[in-house]
Amino acid sequence: MEKLTLVKIGGNIIDNEIALNDFLNLFHQIPGKKILVHGGGKIATELSKKIGLNPEMVQGRRITDAEMLKVVTMVYAGLTNKTIVAKLQGLKENAIGLTGADGNVIVAQKRPVVEIDYGFVGDITEENVNADFLKDLLDKNFLPVFSAITHDGQGQLFNTNADTVASTIAIALAEFYDVRLIFSFERKGVLKDINDENSVIRSINELNFNTFVKENIIADGMIPKITNALQAVNKGVSQVIIKNANDLLDEFAGTIVSK
Amino acid sequence: MEKLTLVKIGGNIIDNEIALNDFLNLFHQIPGKKILVHGGGKIATELSKKIGLNPEMVQGRRITDAEMLKVVTMVYAGLTNKTIVAKLQGLKENAIGLTGADGNVIVAQKRPVVEIDYGFVGDITEENVNADFLKDLLDKNFLPVFSAITHDGQGQLFNTNADTVASTIAIALAEFYDVRLIFSFERKGVLKDINDENSVIRSINELNFNTFVKENIIADGMIPKITNALQAVNKGVSQVIIKNANDLLDEFAGTIVSK
Repeated sequence: MEKLTLVKIGGNIIDNEIALNDFLNLFHQIPGKKILVHGGGKIATELSKKIGLNPEMVQGRRITDAEMLKVVTMVYAGLTNKTIVAKLQGLKENAIGLTGADGNVIVAQKRPVVEIDYGFVGDITEENVNADFLKDLLDKNFLPVFSAITHDGQGQLFNTNADTVASTIAIALAEFYDVRLIFSFERKGVLKDINDENSVIRSINELNFNTFVKENIIADGMIPKITNALQAVNKGVSQVIIKNANDLLDEFAGTIVSK
Repeated sequence: MEKLTLVKIGGNIIDNEIALNDFLNLFHQIPGKKILVHGGGKIATELSKKIGLNPEMVQGRRITDAEMLKVVTMVYAGLTNKTIVAKLQGLKENAIGLTGADGNVIVAQKRPVVEIDYGFVGDITEENVNADFLKDLLDKNFLPVFSAITHDGQGQLFNTNADTVASTIAIALAEFYDVRLIFSFERKGVLKDINDENSVIRSINELNFNTFVKENIIADGMIPKITNALQAVNKGVSQVIIKNANDLLDEFAGTIVSK
């Protein structure tokens, strides 16, 4: 199968124009078919404060009310997405910016209210991705650039977790491509010792993951991230790589999650 | 040739959710292939004021500096475009939102500084439109929805006049389709007497246009609008219709500009 590389970048790169340019220059050098998924960054939070919104946080997660949805749609789908698309076009990559609403490519379900009402937040699974449309774009050498905005197919936009958008698209396209999913973040990989950047765990699979969790080597926010990555490889994604954006082209850098 | 209807809507519809929903319901009922181009509305101006920008105006035209470009990219390409795309998807139209940067569909030139530096404003002609890409989307029953943001192909986004985006795309697609271009605005058409909504000029061509201008019946901002429309029909667009959004489906409403 043809190779496809899907890269997710987070806020630390988006918020810094030099870091973003450096990242895009490296991303441009990845050979073959590619997709980029970007997260939010601080711009949405700053803008919401400037216009007098007070984003409510519950258990560390932002509640997306109607006004906050407008802000994230402006920043993620507008400013951030189109800035990246224009920069990639400047590198002669035929980028096309998408939300889940464009071409009906990702239809989400509003997150059910259990204890907390997260507001206009959409949850997705791989069945919700229009993989044929994406394959058609990729086959014509377009480079899809996703912001993490989805819709319900009934006229309502949603804010969706960008890591989930990335892994869900990766799983949906594993039917057609040999998919490598790269989560680029601020550390060199998953670390044994959070204070030592040289303690990168080179390889994680289901077996050693359970041991790492028991021994408290992998903890907190890293647990859902790895669980998500293991789910992706169990559903057909070849590799999930967690690495620093600066090491994007270094095949020997970062943590590789595989079966 | 197959018919294509390209509709441009302005700020008065975008700023009012009920008017926008009404318009989209009518737009949905237009048979055949369609493209929508939307202007800005007051949201960008309001947002720029809220965050402390002071949009400079020269001879009634806004100067787009770097900060203002961010605001219009957020509002036009983000909030307005994706709101419209999601609503059209809710009506089962397979809408896809585009700026000129997406798929490199419109490459603009920065407006040259003669007396005034308009800032990040892009000018376009029909040669700058990737008509093949649009034809491919239309043939697959996608409904392109354009915000008036373009790019230079080198990484720079531009603000572009939405009327110009609409007429330029219409001309570029006249090679493939029998194109009807509708400018929907707040009046019933081009009026002989601006105070009388019943004084709509039914038909304008090059000959009677010159007479109307000489007799001062058509004046001010309407002159460039009609000149633009006449240029479109001279370059292959079948009809340009200037009408009220509420009359969108009424074939007997508005002003028809033709050869």
